[in-house]
Amino acid sequence: MTKAIPERGRGRRLPTAEELRIWRDFVETTEALKSRLASRLQIESSLSPGDYVVLLALSEAQDNQMRSSELATHIGWERSRLSHHLGRMERRGLIRRQECATVPRGAEVLLTPTGAEAFRRSTVPHLRAIRELFVDAFTPEQLLAAGETAAALRAHLDTHQEE
Amino acid sequence: MTKAIPERGRGRRLPTAEELRIWRDFVETTEALKSRLASRLQIESSLSPGDYVVLLALSEAQDNQMRSSELATHIGWERSRLSHHLGRMERRGLIRRQECATVPRGAEVLLTPTGAEAFRRSTVPHLRAIRELFVDAFTPEQLLAAGETAAALRAHLDTHQEE
Repeated sequence: MTKAIPERGRGRRLPTAEELRIWRDFVETTEALKSRLASRLQIESSLSPGDYVVLLALSEAQDNQMRSSELATHIGWERSRLSHHLGRMERRGLIRRQECATVPRGAEVLLTPTGAEAFRRSTVPHLRAIRELFVDAFTPEQLLAAGETAAALRAHLDTHQEE
Repeated sequence: MTKAIPERGRGRRLPTAEELRIWRDFVETTEALKSRLASRLQIESSLSPGDYVVLLALSEAQDNQMRSSELATHIGWERSRLSHHLGRMERRGLIRRQECATVPRGAEVLLTPTGAEAFRRSTVPHLRAIRELFVDAFTPEQLLAAGETAAALRAHLDTHQEE
């Protein structure tokens, strides 16, 4: 994936107009997809994408609970953003926070039965929206190509940590 | 693009495990890329991705100004989000707002010389980051495939407005 062409990726070269066009297309389309999925989720399940990501992480966590710092890392959010978001979810009864006895500042975040039920009800409509808006956009070959694009990008980002 | 395989995209089928794996990979990698670009922009130019998007839109607008409602549509933000963001940018001197004489509630958003200069200075480092983090992830063939992925997705989303 990263065997690239010699001299590409070196030096201070700027992207060509064509490379930039592909970049803009790529980033704008993935944004449009995200926003379409977000409105489906809101209409069908009254959840925001942020709610969904938190509920998904807790659903997959052992005992349906996670340290808030771990959760922040897992979903890739700043801790302050997560903390505000968890406050709103707690007021809606979707999660509960409790201080951790052993670790200072290490609140434990727990999925409540209400949260588990909201997540469960959202799953089928959300998966269907993913199928309709993402999977169905592609022929089987194009879908594999999209997977390869993601894999190449992932490998590249992993080998270029903090340049 | 949308000639798809008969019966795909029909009915209430859920994605297969493999389709979901590709979806998750795709969405997680594009998020990781966005967040890597955002930190580069912050470190190199003291701009957030939101600042950059607004400055880019105004830079490309006629007379470097836009009605705020137009700007919201152009960058795909909710008006309340844009209004908060513009308040912060105005305090930093990057933009200026003035009431529009002819249209009620139609504030005009103007790029200031400070904003134009901040955008100008950010351009080369930001383009370089796009080349390093996105373009260089791919061989030329893979980059074209990424462009085709985006085009297929765009065509699909355009033909599936508001199901």
